[in-house]
Amino acid sequence: MLALRLDPQGPRVVADQPEPRAPGEALLRLRTGGICATDVELCRGYMGFTGVLGHEWVGEVLDAPDPAWVGRRVVGDINCPCGACPTCRAGRPTHCPHRTVLGIDQRDGAFAERFSLPLANLHPVPEGVPDDAAVFVEPLAAALEILQQVHVRPTDAVTVLGVGRLGQLCARVLALTGARVLAVSRNPARLALLPPHIPGCSPEEALDRPRADVVVDATGSPAGLALATRLTRPRGTLVLKTTTHDLGEASPIPWVIDELTLVGSRCGPFAPALRLLDAGLVDPTPLVTHRMGLAEGVEALALAASPGSVKVLLHP
Amino acid sequence: MLALRLDPQGPRVVADQPEPRAPGEALLRLRTGGICATDVELCRGYMGFTGVLGHEWVGEVLDAPDPAWVGRRVVGDINCPCGACPTCRAGRPTHCPHRTVLGIDQRDGAFAERFSLPLANLHPVPEGVPDDAAVFVEPLAAALEILQQVHVRPTDAVTVLGVGRLGQLCARVLALTGARVLAVSRNPARLALLPPHIPGCSPEEALDRPRADVVVDATGSPAGLALATRLTRPRGTLVLKTTTHDLGEASPIPWVIDELTLVGSRCGPFAPALRLLDAGLVDPTPLVTHRMGLAEGVEALALAASPGSVKVLLHP
Repeated sequence: MLALRLDPQGPRVVADQPEPRAPGEALLRLRTGGICATDVELCRGYMGFTGVLGHEWVGEVLDAPDPAWVGRRVVGDINCPCGACPTCRAGRPTHCPHRTVLGIDQRDGAFAERFSLPLANLHPVPEGVPDDAAVFVEPLAAALEILQQVHVRPTDAVTVLGVGRLGQLCARVLALTGARVLAVSRNPARLALLPPHIPGCSPEEALDRPRADVVVDATGSPAGLALATRLTRPRGTLVLKTTTHDLGEASPIPWVIDELTLVGSRCGPFAPALRLLDAGLVDPTPLVTHRMGLAEGVEALALAASPGSVKVLLHP
Repeated sequence: MLALRLDPQGPRVVADQPEPRAPGEALLRLRTGGICATDVELCRGYMGFTGVLGHEWVGEVLDAPDPAWVGRRVVGDINCPCGACPTCRAGRPTHCPHRTVLGIDQRDGAFAERFSLPLANLHPVPEGVPDDAAVFVEPLAAALEILQQVHVRPTDAVTVLGVGRLGQLCARVLALTGARVLAVSRNPARLALLPPHIPGCSPEEALDRPRADVVVDATGSPAGLALATRLTRPRGTLVLKTTTHDLGEASPIPWVIDELTLVGSRCGPFAPALRLLDAGLVDPTPLVTHRMGLAEGVEALALAASPGSVKVLLHP
């Protein structure tokens, strides 16, 4: 079957990827895939992953241990925990040290005609949520993870630094709290994609304003953390949504003197993400800038890495 | 009068320091001073401070706007906020952007025969607390600041990395919660200063154990943060008690993947620190390794910077 693989020599499309064989798991057919910054980072060597890429997707269940699932349109949690270790039993399955992660760590991903996941990972997509919205459930859940971890108050001032794929969703989700959300970017075209209730400005303009209670670094850049530190008020919270390889100009001194709280934030809950999409409270579809076929996967990855794109979708 | 000053050419003892003149403030006589890692850092250029050093002290009120204070033995908060700005009015006076800080920032410190502070900063020392214990109120309050900021549960595993002056007090305070506290240091002599209910081990031994719920970096070293990161469990809390100039080997990737919370932590509340000393629940006096006269202040600073000392006290 057709698949977009990452191998040590780089990403490539293959026609002879073996069919997934995972007894006890659901067999899925890809309907739509979404390319994420993490896919771009994986191609640069992050995590040392090899295998089929892809962890943002909408699919259809072709086969499952419970036949009631067959034919359903689904999305799915990308972490596959062991369920038995102390970390899983402590209620932190997404941190299971034995976990595999779809298209990221020791498990083939979704950018293939067919792929597999445990039934426990799947969530049916409500009828009113189109594929173009449902494909954003994984990053929308990652944006919601901020609200799982940090108490954002309706009276807070919140700054989202970087409005690429993930920053766009973070800004939309944080604005649901009633907080004043400011989006900060050097890219006016990306700021223009924000809904009218979320104002945007440049980093220089942001530095001229009072510092925010909560700042989210979604820049994906080593320079982001130092700037985010300057934008956070004393005893404020700085959320790290960027897995960059180095710390740039960041220094721990202002974290201690200003008693900042830094919160690393990763994967989040799918169920509330689906509820928000179903209720129409978040509309990610304006972020789709490109659509390509799975066979053009390598070109699609290059496009996703360029500043001219936001969300690149893949269709089988 | 005699004073231990820091000037651009370095620390020195002067005999002709002018008497403090601060109308509206209390005039204080130094009884005992304590040298802190911050004093050593200031002498290396941290904060660009010049003036009289000293922010750990016990004193006696010589003169005050309210005569009821005269003759009292006191300690005092080192931050002098404006009381009027938005940060002060938001209840964060220790973060007032207009603040001066005793012996650290724009305000002469306590290592002099006489010094001054606003009355609002002073706390009477209970009769049963000797000077040798009361001189630890400021760093003990800084250790208590961890419990102001972080909910440490009785069932938690807590690791304190670095058992110098501040780490010793952090370990003692955190053990009061009922949590299992482990102290980690390469210095067996410092581990031996801990009370019997706080076990110690080397960094290598700590890395072989399950990761802790809460880790405190009190190493004062750029290497501390990277090691502290490795010792913290997924979704655990890493408290930064170290104002080092660089980040060493630290990387933000594990902070995001393991969703750590990093909490910068600085000055804390004096009243509960005095209560713990008065109740005998924390005994810092075994940490006093050296006593010197104010006239030997430069030698005392050098001694405090050497690994053979823990707390060096100064007597006028």
